[in-house]
Amino acid sequence: MFHVEHWTIQISYNQLFNPVLKMEYIKSKIRDVIDFPTKGIVFKDLTTVFKDPRALHIIGWDLSQMYRDKGVTKVVGIESRGFIGGSILAFELGAGFVPARKPGKLPADTVRAEYTKEYGVDVIEMHRDAITEDDVVVLHDDVLATGGTMAAAYELVKSMNPKKIYINFIIELTALNGRATLPADAEVTSLIKY
Amino acid sequence: MFHVEHWTIQISYNQLFNPVLKMEYIKSKIRDVIDFPTKGIVFKDLTTVFKDPRALHIIGWDLSQMYRDKGVTKVVGIESRGFIGGSILAFELGAGFVPARKPGKLPADTVRAEYTKEYGVDVIEMHRDAITEDDVVVLHDDVLATGGTMAAAYELVKSMNPKKIYINFIIELTALNGRATLPADAEVTSLIKY
Repeated sequence: MFHVEHWTIQISYNQLFNPVLKMEYIKSKIRDVIDFPTKGIVFKDLTTVFKDPRALHIIGWDLSQMYRDKGVTKVVGIESRGFIGGSILAFELGAGFVPARKPGKLPADTVRAEYTKEYGVDVIEMHRDAITEDDVVVLHDDVLATGGTMAAAYELVKSMNPKKIYINFIIELTALNGRATLPADAEVTSLIKY
Repeated sequence: MFHVEHWTIQISYNQLFNPVLKMEYIKSKIRDVIDFPTKGIVFKDLTTVFKDPRALHIIGWDLSQMYRDKGVTKVVGIESRGFIGGSILAFELGAGFVPARKPGKLPADTVRAEYTKEYGVDVIEMHRDAITEDDVVVLHDDVLATGGTMAAAYELVKSMNPKKIYINFIIELTALNGRATLPADAEVTSLIKY
């Protein structure tokens, strides 16, 4: 396991208003970790983005701009890296934050969905009272890879019958074609595509 | 397993500036779950706080006011409920966010600390490059119970030798006397005490 540190580009305050430079700045903060979690995978490590104050600010601001006029009332973050961008997004939009968690973690009554991973089946849970029919929901995770977890979380949210569901990622790995796994009628956005 | 739903108090915009009413509002949103995770425990469930837009806003705002003038550069959130308040706090302070995670989750080089739980030993990890000697750090988790995880996270952060470390919780369960487990020289704050 070794890392590739990208060149960090310098960016002035005025350049923060240049959308291309902003995204190049975020990209320069992403750390590629080779052979994680298993051999042959190049893992996009966002901890080096989140720990950078300017990059965290850009992400929180730009994600919230995408949904500013959509009447969002709840942001659902996927455990656990999706809690980071998701909770900032909820705070910025004046919405509530809801965690979608691994089984057994949520203390009250839950709904659950199973989904297939590379080896075997996994489960994701949400509180049964987390979403109401009056809600407009953004589902958020850090990276769109194969899309299995997000598709399961979407089904869970849909079962609670909100007015509208959006899906959002910070990074989308287009080569893995995760969008094909997501529902065809879902509006999917990502800040950065690879 | 059953729940106690507290009375929800009504609060107007002007009353948001009344610190006592604000905290009563947050308290009214906390859900007590009896016998979770094990029999005899009354679990303070904050998901019912986080999903409420006004309560999430109060928490993000009030936590950040506590540290507004302290030159904070990094907020460390404890996996995974500490990611929620921690990332909002980092965003609001213009700081970076750093996750402290369960073993094997962080992709690059880590430092780790062991700590004793009720049954056996647990481990918490952080990236070795997450904190520098120039940092002023706030460690954040949602609830102070026995304090074991936070004490371990504190030792990890201290080993990276930052200028200053603060410790912060949303809720403190004073009956469990978690402060006795935390380092005597640490400045500990909590928004709500029980």
